[in-house]
Amino acid sequence: MRSHYCGIVTKELLDQEITLCGWVDRRRDHGGVIFIDLRDRDGVVQVVFDPDSTGFEIADQVRSEYVLKVTGRVRARSEGTINPNMATGEIEVYGLGIEILNSSETPPFPLSEYTHVGEDVRLKYRFLDLRRQEMQNNLRLRAKITSVIRQNLEEQGFLDLETPILTRATPEGARDYLVPSRTHEGRFFALPQSPQLFKQLLMVSGFDRYYQIAKCFRDEDLRADRQPEFTQIDIEASFIDQEQIMAITEKMIRQLFIDVKGVDLGEFPRMPYAEAMAIYGSDKPDLRIPLQLVDIKDLMKDIEFKVFAGPANDSASRVTALKVDGGAEISRKQIDEYTKFVGIYGAKGLAWIKVNELEKGIEGLQSPIIKFLGDDVTMSIMERVAAKNGDIVFFGADKTKVVSEALGALRIKVGLDLDLTTCDWAPLWVVDFPMFETNDDGSMTALHHPFTSPSCSPEQLKEDPLAALSVAYDMVLNGTELGGGSIRIHDQAMQETVFEVLGIAEAEQREKFGFLLDALKYGAPPHGGLAFGLDRLVMLMTGAPSIRDVIAFPKTQTAACVMTDAPGEVNSLQLRDLNIALRKKESAEKPKAE
Amino acid sequence: MRSHYCGIVTKELLDQEITLCGWVDRRRDHGGVIFIDLRDRDGVVQVVFDPDSTGFEIADQVRSEYVLKVTGRVRARSEGTINPNMATGEIEVYGLGIEILNSSETPPFPLSEYTHVGEDVRLKYRFLDLRRQEMQNNLRLRAKITSVIRQNLEEQGFLDLETPILTRATPEGARDYLVPSRTHEGRFFALPQSPQLFKQLLMVSGFDRYYQIAKCFRDEDLRADRQPEFTQIDIEASFIDQEQIMAITEKMIRQLFIDVKGVDLGEFPRMPYAEAMAIYGSDKPDLRIPLQLVDIKDLMKDIEFKVFAGPANDSASRVTALKVDGGAEISRKQIDEYTKFVGIYGAKGLAWIKVNELEKGIEGLQSPIIKFLGDDVTMSIMERVAAKNGDIVFFGADKTKVVSEALGALRIKVGLDLDLTTCDWAPLWVVDFPMFETNDDGSMTALHHPFTSPSCSPEQLKEDPLAALSVAYDMVLNGTELGGGSIRIHDQAMQETVFEVLGIAEAEQREKFGFLLDALKYGAPPHGGLAFGLDRLVMLMTGAPSIRDVIAFPKTQTAACVMTDAPGEVNSLQLRDLNIALRKKESAEKPKAE
Repeated sequence: MRSHYCGIVTKELLDQEITLCGWVDRRRDHGGVIFIDLRDRDGVVQVVFDPDSTGFEIADQVRSEYVLKVTGRVRARSEGTINPNMATGEIEVYGLGIEILNSSETPPFPLSEYTHVGEDVRLKYRFLDLRRQEMQNNLRLRAKITSVIRQNLEEQGFLDLETPILTRATPEGARDYLVPSRTHEGRFFALPQSPQLFKQLLMVSGFDRYYQIAKCFRDEDLRADRQPEFTQIDIEASFIDQEQIMAITEKMIRQLFIDVKGVDLGEFPRMPYAEAMAIYGSDKPDLRIPLQLVDIKDLMKDIEFKVFAGPANDSASRVTALKVDGGAEISRKQIDEYTKFVGIYGAKGLAWIKVNELEKGIEGLQSPIIKFLGDDVTMSIMERVAAKNGDIVFFGADKTKVVSEALGALRIKVGLDLDLTTCDWAPLWVVDFPMFETNDDGSMTALHHPFTSPSCSPEQLKEDPLAALSVAYDMVLNGTELGGGSIRIHDQAMQETVFEVLGIAEAEQREKFGFLLDALKYGAPPHGGLAFGLDRLVMLMTGAPSIRDVIAFPKTQTAACVMTDAPGEVNSLQLRDLNIALRKKESAEKPKAE
Repeated sequence: MRSHYCGIVTKELLDQEITLCGWVDRRRDHGGVIFIDLRDRDGVVQVVFDPDSTGFEIADQVRSEYVLKVTGRVRARSEGTINPNMATGEIEVYGLGIEILNSSETPPFPLSEYTHVGEDVRLKYRFLDLRRQEMQNNLRLRAKITSVIRQNLEEQGFLDLETPILTRATPEGARDYLVPSRTHEGRFFALPQSPQLFKQLLMVSGFDRYYQIAKCFRDEDLRADRQPEFTQIDIEASFIDQEQIMAITEKMIRQLFIDVKGVDLGEFPRMPYAEAMAIYGSDKPDLRIPLQLVDIKDLMKDIEFKVFAGPANDSASRVTALKVDGGAEISRKQIDEYTKFVGIYGAKGLAWIKVNELEKGIEGLQSPIIKFLGDDVTMSIMERVAAKNGDIVFFGADKTKVVSEALGALRIKVGLDLDLTTCDWAPLWVVDFPMFETNDDGSMTALHHPFTSPSCSPEQLKEDPLAALSVAYDMVLNGTELGGGSIRIHDQAMQETVFEVLGIAEAEQREKFGFLLDALKYGAPPHGGLAFGLDRLVMLMTGAPSIRDVIAFPKTQTAACVMTDAPGEVNSLQLRDLNIALRKKESAEKPKAE
């Protein structure tokens, strides 16, 4: 119906007659002349109808969000009316004909400019919210990202293979969405938390290189960046080692940033997990911010001050300093805010020392805690952190987990607040993860998953499992984990050892992973892979503040769709077919699930 | 780990030292020399170890499906040992080193050659079954098909946009898979039967051109070509008419066949639904077979023979003839088979006339029914169908549906049996479908779906709904419906009229499609689309006999996965979380669902 999209009408089309289709973004009447900003997915162009134009009467009737087909001639705008903020701002279309393809009621919120509207209203009228330029851009970029990734992986020999959505409960550990079976009474499918086992089976099948942009499902309580269904770029390859799979996926992400953002991320640095935790208090450090943690446990062992000396003499605790360049300017009020902030992570307080005039020694420092530390220890700390005038040094002393999380988060917060970032994009690989972590009850769980290959022999694994590292790797960008993966176990004996260490009995192994264990018996090749979170990747690349801004039809925080009113009620006949019933409500005292 | 894939080792690599990884397809010992056929996803190559080779002892140990890394030098095979049936048959690799990467138990069925194994065994060991060359080829072709389609659609301006899997019950009419909600007690998500409503909303949102290779779900009793989850190439565009969307998708399928099969399907002919039913007894005629139905109702009205005269005088019935060129050779036994065959479709018998010597008039014909038809009527039929010596004419006389289905199916069966196909690929568009069809109880349902645009005005639609045609179109290839779609209703008044004709009350409209009706109020553009069944398309292009041969991990006919043992049992705690319970078994007399 159209000859051109609105957004691409530029000076090159001067004097040409064109036909456009789109929505009325705005309509203004200026001294009897009608100006219509016509919008389609490519952008907006101004169409002008004066009283002499054919169709002037119709143009006069249109309102916001009417759907039009307009014919007109492209002409230059007069000097004073050029709009440099618009891609089409140098021209306008003089209307020669107009047809109203559909009318519109007044939308519940304006679409042509951003106004603050409750997200519930935006989600209820999602089909209108998606008309906004921001949402159009986000979803177009998302489509472009998947397209570039597909092309890149296919060029690298990866096959797009589909795995089932109706499947068996997966071992990822999160809660499954269940689907009652009609034909198998009392039994349930689970929606996949990831295609992990299937992609490993595809390697056993000899497909050699697999990828899929796969929907995954987790019935978890939602946080800001979680959705019940999310999308994963899922990758697996055979006859490769860690170096190769890292090279393949690094190449993919670098190419993506070049194609989509015009940015070469360069070669990704690598950092062992232990170093990341020590220096950045995080396994996904944001390297845009140069601030680092400096451990000072050894300096604190013999002081009187219990707040520091206690953790300094406890092997499960950590005492660390965070020097912030130029941080002496931070106000007391702001320090109080930061103290509250680290409280979120369990820190009981936030000690600090401001460095005013270091050349004056202890006199040049300002802090409530120096008197507890003593002058010598204080000056040793200053030396260790290489403090200079104008800095502030924050302290953390508590269980290792608390200190790392609290100061790791503070590092980023202060860094962003003081604008200390040194670059826009800081990718890295975190490697050499521990194989297991200890639970509070002393038992162990796999840090990644139980199919991750250790980097030691089965004997060493059994001897000191907590010292064992895995052949696992996470790709991190700006403090966000973009993706992670591992080389998998392809050897039956090693797999059995891991299950043994984890205390998973044979019956449970068979029950949960029987088919994978079978597959290992029949010539499983060495293999490994990676999975990227597409939604997060798109968030990073668009700068969208919420995961809901990069998904066309997202769920709310209570896992509902307010537009379609899903989940909905179903009739009892349907439930009978599925051999299930709603559970009788229990006595009112019992807390409800919601 | 490898320098080359096995399947691409050819004469060009002569004398080079290469490294291969793969599985032992076969191992033979010929006079003390070990021949290993090594297989990877690209094919098979022969590796030779003689007693002088390094690694001979290891080569001697390997068995079928062991995983090897082999280094060797490419050399020409000697004259007599060249294998022209193998892509790599002119060379072999002289082994210089070998490493066993994994061993294998003896597989439950041989993989190097086809042997008849029950499908249940193949499905249980799917990870082995997928190693067979046939399955590798099918799934590689499937990946190639989706890749070409994506590229083609993206070049035509379509955006890959994801729609939800956890959604509200859709109006397609088949049974939904339900997912109990944990956070919304007593409510359920439904898995989508298609993204129909969402793609229409994306058009309302202004995305202009959408596509998705989308998983869809139907909890129906399975037939040979059905799966509980299937994949659809889903397409929708705005500001287009029927001609444009047909051109876009015809271009896509033509390009696909050129790229993947090296076949140009040419321009697709078009046929109105009424013509397809009249001449081929089917709305998806297989035009590879030139046989046609010829209606002879008018000739039968006045004869005595009730079997023909009854239907000839009933407006809901049909009397038709199917002339088969060269069919006089069909034996009586074969005719009995065909009689049984049409019985499947409800036909009570199969009358026939063999044309032996037409020049002798009625004497030259052979048939049990001529005496009932009378000579004149018989000869009129011969003339109408343009019979010639050596033909057979079959007859159908019954309710229209029975005759069309029975003779439509017979047309194809006889055509294939007698090898009458005139080409390998016969695509066409079927157009001008009726808007509605009548149910047995006299009510009407939409032949496509209630959002399909009629090709008449709301007034005409109300006046004679059964005469109304829709702007719908099906793409058919070799008698299979590849895809179908329609221009949708974008006008609220028209949508209301359709609901009115269908007798869907306003409350039900709001309950089921409230958000779509809302969307139509706020400037819905003219739009339409199409959906292709990817699984069927891949079946056609690979020639696979079963839909399960083109899906990596399919379900059985009872909607189960025998490999993972899905659906599985879940514990009562999980059900309690979901606010559901298993239904108490009813008395034993009641038939079970299965």
